[in-house]
Amino acid sequence: MSLDTVNQTACFGGTQGVYRHPSTVCRCEMTFAVFLPAQARKVPVPVLWYLSGLTCTHENAMTKAGAQAWAAREGLALVFPDTSPRGEDVADHEDYDLGQGAGFYIDANQAPWQPHFQMRRYIRDELSALVLGQFPLRAEAMGITGHSMGGHGALTLAIENPATYRSVSAFAPICHPTASDWGRKQFTAYLGADETAWQAFDASVLMRAHGYDGPVLVDQGGADNFANLLMTESLSKAMDARGQAGQVRLHEGYDHSYFFVASFMAEHIAHHSKILHAV
Amino acid sequence: MSLDTVNQTACFGGTQGVYRHPSTVCRCEMTFAVFLPAQARKVPVPVLWYLSGLTCTHENAMTKAGAQAWAAREGLALVFPDTSPRGEDVADHEDYDLGQGAGFYIDANQAPWQPHFQMRRYIRDELSALVLGQFPLRAEAMGITGHSMGGHGALTLAIENPATYRSVSAFAPICHPTASDWGRKQFTAYLGADETAWQAFDASVLMRAHGYDGPVLVDQGGADNFANLLMTESLSKAMDARGQAGQVRLHEGYDHSYFFVASFMAEHIAHHSKILHAV
Repeated sequence: MSLDTVNQTACFGGTQGVYRHPSTVCRCEMTFAVFLPAQARKVPVPVLWYLSGLTCTHENAMTKAGAQAWAAREGLALVFPDTSPRGEDVADHEDYDLGQGAGFYIDANQAPWQPHFQMRRYIRDELSALVLGQFPLRAEAMGITGHSMGGHGALTLAIENPATYRSVSAFAPICHPTASDWGRKQFTAYLGADETAWQAFDASVLMRAHGYDGPVLVDQGGADNFANLLMTESLSKAMDARGQAGQVRLHEGYDHSYFFVASFMAEHIAHHSKILHAV
Repeated sequence: MSLDTVNQTACFGGTQGVYRHPSTVCRCEMTFAVFLPAQARKVPVPVLWYLSGLTCTHENAMTKAGAQAWAAREGLALVFPDTSPRGEDVADHEDYDLGQGAGFYIDANQAPWQPHFQMRRYIRDELSALVLGQFPLRAEAMGITGHSMGGHGALTLAIENPATYRSVSAFAPICHPTASDWGRKQFTAYLGADETAWQAFDASVLMRAHGYDGPVLVDQGGADNFANLLMTESLSKAMDARGQAGQVRLHEGYDHSYFFVASFMAEHIAHHSKILHAV
């Protein structure tokens, strides 16, 4: 598998890089970012995946979430994937919440999305194999987190693949997409009208059915303009019904921005670090 | 003085806000950002000014420098001004390093710049009076820092006004603009061809002539593409000649980006906090 280095610089004693590669799964060039802490120069380190939200690329969280400061201290690597396939040959839509920038971390089976929009398989299989092969990372010590659409991606990937993702958390995740306008629209487009196929991509549904083997940390802002689309309460109820370990915390005054994400990043990094370093 | 709130959200237990006001000095609407730590709800707090570099607005450092995390811990407020006057009626230039986004923190006396480009007076006098009047800040405990063009602004403002700015630091500052293409071009445009008028805006010249009453902290990346324009060595020599307290540190592998700024922000905040809390 080939990999081009777009940019690389020192960052908190480690290295922040941006890389590009031809994706077989998404059938286009894909860009992603990796932060390697100083510890990775000597030994393989645990890795935390950060999945971003609608309209984001690999760049937003890399520059605005403030995660490297804490990952450097804890000796964790960070991977920041893009949120969808990209390019002129890739299907798109004029709405910000469908098409490029809005992959939803699912595998489309409907035209015109199917040929490129395979973000679940891309993240879980192809990009995972690529970064584990190219960087000094511990394959058995991977965790996953994300924001908004990326929080949905993190929760669903972790619940479906607990042996792959040993720790999970989310910032203001889309919690119940099969019942939200952030979900129904995209699932209809990517997966078709049959709602039974949607259930495997809904964190609240999956939580109620399977739970997750480990504590789940979710933070939500109390002044989030998108609260009615996120449906945090559905996840809380599913966790309660399941007896799921972990917590959903509501933080008064915080909105949906990266100021919210950055404010609680240290605690999320600590959550993952504790679990992953014990693996 | 009037002030419009553009946006306000919780951030690291405090408040991150963006504000707009009509500037008498710059004769246009100006936008700036303020971070208030939780401590400011009870008592006035010290304040650190952060001046940004070429092409930046109030937003870049506010979102990418990671300063709020440390300012929250130390109980410091942060002010992020814009880098120039803005608007359709304001003179501009097609180059990225002249005109809007490139105010250089000096007071222009040449056409067409003179009517609006008064960034030194704007920062030091007008915006200072505004924020001290509107927010719970300690006027006697102000420090200043900045990046690149903003590092030049911080150093020159502090050396010229040590009673106003009680602490100073800089990230990859333009150190000797009267001898650099980042300086000569702009000073010619804003101040005219007579180079004697330029000297009051050159950190190395000012350092050699006056020094600064307190330790000066400067960080510079060893892989900075703009090193030949910044001329850090000139400032180091001026500090040595003066016997100036402080240090100019070179960090191998760091470039000119906000990853560099963020990596050393904790130490800069600690530097300012120690001095300002003792005032």
